[in-house]
Amino acid sequence: MKTRTGLAALLSACAVCALSGAAVTTAWAAPPPMDSKALEAKFDAQIDPAEMGTWLKLLAAEPNHVGSAHDKSNAEWIAARLKSWGWDAKIETFDVLYPTPLAETLELVGGPGAPFKAMLTEPPIPGDQPTYTKDALPAYVAFQGDGDVTAPLVYANYGMPEDYLALERMGISVKGKIVITRYGGGWRGLKPLLAQMHGAAGALIYSDPKDDGYATDDVYPKGPARPPHGFQRGSVADMPLYPGDPLTPGYGSTKDAKRIDRKDAITILKIPCLPISYADAQVLLQSLDGPVAPANFRGSLPITYHIGGSDGGGKAHLMVKSDWSQKTLYDVVGALKGTEEPNDWIVRGNHHDGWVMGASDPLSGQIALLAEAKAFGALEKTGWKPKRTIVYTSWDGEEPMLLGSTEWAETHGAELKAKGVVYINSDGNGRGFFRAEGSHAFQHFVNEISADVKDPETGVSVRDRARARLAVGMSEGGGGRGGEANSPQMKAAATDPSKDIPLGALGSGSDYSAFLQHLGLPSIDFAYGGEGESGGVYHSLYDDYQHHSTFVDPGFVYDALLAKTVGRAVMRLADTDLPVQRYGDFADTVSTYLDEVKKLADTTRDTARTQARLLGANAFNLAADPSKPHANPAPLAASPPMNFAALDSAVAKLKVSAAAFDSALATKGESLDKAQRAKLDAVIRPLDQSLLRPEGLPGRPWYMNMIYAPGRFTGYGAKTLPGVREAIEQRRFDDAQKYVGITGQALNAYAGELDKATAIVNGG
Amino acid sequence: MKTRTGLAALLSACAVCALSGAAVTTAWAAPPPMDSKALEAKFDAQIDPAEMGTWLKLLAAEPNHVGSAHDKSNAEWIAARLKSWGWDAKIETFDVLYPTPLAETLELVGGPGAPFKAMLTEPPIPGDQPTYTKDALPAYVAFQGDGDVTAPLVYANYGMPEDYLALERMGISVKGKIVITRYGGGWRGLKPLLAQMHGAAGALIYSDPKDDGYATDDVYPKGPARPPHGFQRGSVADMPLYPGDPLTPGYGSTKDAKRIDRKDAITILKIPCLPISYADAQVLLQSLDGPVAPANFRGSLPITYHIGGSDGGGKAHLMVKSDWSQKTLYDVVGALKGTEEPNDWIVRGNHHDGWVMGASDPLSGQIALLAEAKAFGALEKTGWKPKRTIVYTSWDGEEPMLLGSTEWAETHGAELKAKGVVYINSDGNGRGFFRAEGSHAFQHFVNEISADVKDPETGVSVRDRARARLAVGMSEGGGGRGGEANSPQMKAAATDPSKDIPLGALGSGSDYSAFLQHLGLPSIDFAYGGEGESGGVYHSLYDDYQHHSTFVDPGFVYDALLAKTVGRAVMRLADTDLPVQRYGDFADTVSTYLDEVKKLADTTRDTARTQARLLGANAFNLAADPSKPHANPAPLAASPPMNFAALDSAVAKLKVSAAAFDSALATKGESLDKAQRAKLDAVIRPLDQSLLRPEGLPGRPWYMNMIYAPGRFTGYGAKTLPGVREAIEQRRFDDAQKYVGITGQALNAYAGELDKATAIVNGG
Repeated sequence: MKTRTGLAALLSACAVCALSGAAVTTAWAAPPPMDSKALEAKFDAQIDPAEMGTWLKLLAAEPNHVGSAHDKSNAEWIAARLKSWGWDAKIETFDVLYPTPLAETLELVGGPGAPFKAMLTEPPIPGDQPTYTKDALPAYVAFQGDGDVTAPLVYANYGMPEDYLALERMGISVKGKIVITRYGGGWRGLKPLLAQMHGAAGALIYSDPKDDGYATDDVYPKGPARPPHGFQRGSVADMPLYPGDPLTPGYGSTKDAKRIDRKDAITILKIPCLPISYADAQVLLQSLDGPVAPANFRGSLPITYHIGGSDGGGKAHLMVKSDWSQKTLYDVVGALKGTEEPNDWIVRGNHHDGWVMGASDPLSGQIALLAEAKAFGALEKTGWKPKRTIVYTSWDGEEPMLLGSTEWAETHGAELKAKGVVYINSDGNGRGFFRAEGSHAFQHFVNEISADVKDPETGVSVRDRARARLAVGMSEGGGGRGGEANSPQMKAAATDPSKDIPLGALGSGSDYSAFLQHLGLPSIDFAYGGEGESGGVYHSLYDDYQHHSTFVDPGFVYDALLAKTVGRAVMRLADTDLPVQRYGDFADTVSTYLDEVKKLADTTRDTARTQARLLGANAFNLAADPSKPHANPAPLAASPPMNFAALDSAVAKLKVSAAAFDSALATKGESLDKAQRAKLDAVIRPLDQSLLRPEGLPGRPWYMNMIYAPGRFTGYGAKTLPGVREAIEQRRFDDAQKYVGITGQALNAYAGELDKATAIVNGG
Repeated sequence: MKTRTGLAALLSACAVCALSGAAVTTAWAAPPPMDSKALEAKFDAQIDPAEMGTWLKLLAAEPNHVGSAHDKSNAEWIAARLKSWGWDAKIETFDVLYPTPLAETLELVGGPGAPFKAMLTEPPIPGDQPTYTKDALPAYVAFQGDGDVTAPLVYANYGMPEDYLALERMGISVKGKIVITRYGGGWRGLKPLLAQMHGAAGALIYSDPKDDGYATDDVYPKGPARPPHGFQRGSVADMPLYPGDPLTPGYGSTKDAKRIDRKDAITILKIPCLPISYADAQVLLQSLDGPVAPANFRGSLPITYHIGGSDGGGKAHLMVKSDWSQKTLYDVVGALKGTEEPNDWIVRGNHHDGWVMGASDPLSGQIALLAEAKAFGALEKTGWKPKRTIVYTSWDGEEPMLLGSTEWAETHGAELKAKGVVYINSDGNGRGFFRAEGSHAFQHFVNEISADVKDPETGVSVRDRARARLAVGMSEGGGGRGGEANSPQMKAAATDPSKDIPLGALGSGSDYSAFLQHLGLPSIDFAYGGEGESGGVYHSLYDDYQHHSTFVDPGFVYDALLAKTVGRAVMRLADTDLPVQRYGDFADTVSTYLDEVKKLADTTRDTARTQARLLGANAFNLAADPSKPHANPAPLAASPPMNFAALDSAVAKLKVSAAAFDSALATKGESLDKAQRAKLDAVIRPLDQSLLRPEGLPGRPWYMNMIYAPGRFTGYGAKTLPGVREAIEQRRFDDAQKYVGITGQALNAYAGELDKATAIVNGG
């Protein structure tokens, strides 16, 4: 569109170039010129699943990992599409450390079954043409440590902290060994990291058929599950310390940025690591001797799982050598300028890079983003314009470590803190149930959206369907969502249709991390899933167009539904006259978290006491089978009593402040004049930044949000009140007590800002 | 011994012939002539593990199922040993219906993999000579229904009630199909019974490698687990209705007993059934189509488990034809006559028939029983004689349905009710932890025994070791014993070494059933286990001497320990001057059961309410994947409020009466004179018979004990307060309310008898 053409020249100067320097209007908008239901119906009419399918076929035609030709051409194609639809769009590049494999070997050199050479590539599937590509990366995990080692193998189950405790109880050390772990149970990157922390010389990660192979479903191409030679690529950088380019921690990896030395980059692993298929893993696991693996270590291979670790069992040779050169990222950034509040940005993103063809992950979400962008362009042609600026981003380099989003967010941090209203993310998508996670003040907003979107399979709202699933899951004894403990809010939502469904907290694993956890920009992540499953081909050669369109979302029905869902969220946030947030939801949820953390402190204390009693009674020895190796657990530090007063009073204050604001807004919001709305906006927009503390979390200062973080030893999984919760879990009781105070300060600051907002609404 | 030789002529006239007509002395004994610790040390010195091993080798040399030559010769050998050690011993025979296979076939006749013929026999193991026998029964389950059917296969997981609910939810019917189930999750006999109740034409039961095959350990002969072609024989008679000969329900199957017609015997199945190996099962399961099996249906075969049931998938031909003739049982019964109370019988038993060689099950317990018998004989030669009569029994036909013990108990019911003090049972045994279950008044007695027996592996008492296991298991989040919910008593025992370890309730699965549940004779079952495991060869050709001595109890150390343990129990009960029971333990445990049952009633009510709400909201449909077959669950009957007053008051009364008796006995017991002790004995000995009610349990009147029963739909697992608990579980709320009253009556009668006993102790 013409109005924005002239601004394109500014693109290199700021995050969303078209907007920089634009006149700042200080008032919120008058009521929308068009009925929002009618507008959303017009929006929906623009979403064309068949066209989305053609985009997917094109984008997923070739491998599109960072540095590949197709990844770059996809970025260019996306930017061109945005422009053609009337967006101010550009490609913004970053230069990042991104290793690629030069040479790699995995061989069984000792024990039963030796010699054996692992395949490390994925065979093509007859009839599925793209799988014949020559450009796919072989078995590789980015930011592993390179090396050439030969050592006995030890099987460490999921390779999570509790698995090392179990090995310790069996008297097994991994020191100097090559640890073989299976995918699942926690984030990939923690597996080699924990192996390294326990002294291992190398690490392997395989996909057990129990977790996403033949045990779960028929394997591709008959069904969606992982075929025998499929493996899961991924990043093993130490993301819980910081995401993004390892060489530019906390700032953007622009061309001229100062880089730290690679050897000083603490997120890069020190030992070599490879991902392997279960066809390869079976030969290695069958070579192991030593104790029979305990029940929770056992997968679905037709073997007796042993732990190994001795000299007579399997011994492997593992070699990985990488090209550690810089590669260029191609982020696409486009904007539709707001008519009334151009400096209020609604940022929406989905990455475009995959590990191979990436049809489900991430392109199913990418085609939703594109469909939204096209629809907004079409609406603009009919006269609608957003009041706030809409910024659409298509990230590169998410897969290796949220590179594209993190570097962009770090580069434009100040501007984003000044202008960002919210960041809305999506990623892989599929047939099934509505899922959203995000900042809790947006809970009611998300519920309203999901109540207004109709499920194509059942004809009810996607919220009604999500609630039915929650209620049935709970009635069958399962957790409402993914087995987590059911909060009081979750139980209420399952039984009372008038209650909002809780919005889960965001951890990590997609591009919202830098926005939410480093910049304090409230974030929401949307997806559908749970019926069409892509888990079995996750990060493999087989995540391609044929697989997605056959098993994950036939007809692209739910990919289109994602576009309608996120489109509504973007439109409503862009056009709303008053804040959509309900701070009572945030306060209630934080109060539940505080209850959980207090209970955790009690449990942790009980656990230490029980262990001390059992050690004193020699109970671990007496309960062990003397014919098998066993050892006492390491004694737990006694857990001192904790003082939660600072958090108790902060949460109490927060509840009062939140209730006062919600009530004031509900009763007096509509009557605010333009100037008052502008004043309110100036307080509410940056509000979540008060949850940041400059010191960050213990040992990982990049993560500054005191409410939401990815777990240090869960990776993707969220930890709420992380400074306190994780310190208790890890028995760093001094830290825990210190972060009771720091987290309380953050909540007090937040409540103080809310009070200012309330005063404005009340006419102050 | 000479003194008893003359009595042997009386053997055919009564249960323990030697004793009948002996003069009844009415007084309890004076203090024992020998210090009991010294006596028990002498007893222990007689136990020779090496000799026990030679007995095991002999007894397990050939197949010894009912009707086999070796089973009969084993009975004769056992009787001869008892006689040689000074016991009055005889063989008592019964003629029972015991079917054996004449012809059988299992073939896959349609679907992928067809045609295929199942092996149905177990190959020998090179180096393990007895496995080359030609006399082993092929794949067979006794009391299946014979037939010749060809039908599609349906996989029904463990074949338990909840599995049929899951199939119903998937829209799958088993009507007219052949149901294939796996072992585990509940008693074998329920699997074909439930298939039959759901209209199936035939049933198969296989042993999944997840449950006792390669997933659990290396397979025999490398390890103890089930090899690919091993299968589990067993009985599938409807034991929860009544055990014993199906043609003589409630009375002994003596030669001239009247038999009901076979077609009227409700414990015999109507459809054909075979047990199969996982090698055979894999071919059948791989042929199935239809929905992918849900996660809890999946075993460890390297396949995608499907449910099947369609016309295009696997179709099988199953034929079983049996010889339904009578066979003879050979029970061995021996006695050492009591010097002071010859008409007080301490009955102790272990069966001698196996499914094939039966080394672990049951002969490991049988050699303990023999070692005890030999030791008692030796003690008698040194001058000790029991005050009460000790009756040692070696049962035949336990495997097909507790035949030998049940028919003997039914035949001699009146005499056992007049004379029985307690029945002490054992069965298969192995290396590991002390385990006992039994009548709760014997809890403290069993704790005293286990506190006085030293564990050979650790040097502490077997009770200390059991407590350590309980405590460690609880600290690791597991149930203290077998995953059951932890009762307050269990929690106390785990943390406080001064507390007795609770004695679990007896269900069924071994020879105590008729004594405890039909005659009201208190019973205790003893075993060691949990380290040397025999589960993988259970009821297979491979449960033989080599397997037992290599994997289950090398050196017969724990088989010898069982003899020392049970020997102590028998000696102390035979010689005690005062009752060993503590009725407060019984009262407290029953009170816990009542709490459980009330909670169950609440849960059952909540479940029905929740289901009605979910059905009303169409939630099951909305939560289902529409692309997969699914259906609503059948609506649950609303659960009316229940009135527990009759049980509340009975339990309150029981607690008072029990406390009064325990206290009186503790303070005044020692001062009772002979006449008072005799009066007390006359009340205490038959006390548990007051727990019987003539109407028995709903639908299964043979089970008359209102406290202890095997579950109607769990089989072996105990159900306490069964009339109430099972009626609530099965939503027969009228029965539940009725049995609140009936069970209350039983407890009131029991408390009333206790009050009489208290009056005697108090000088009445």
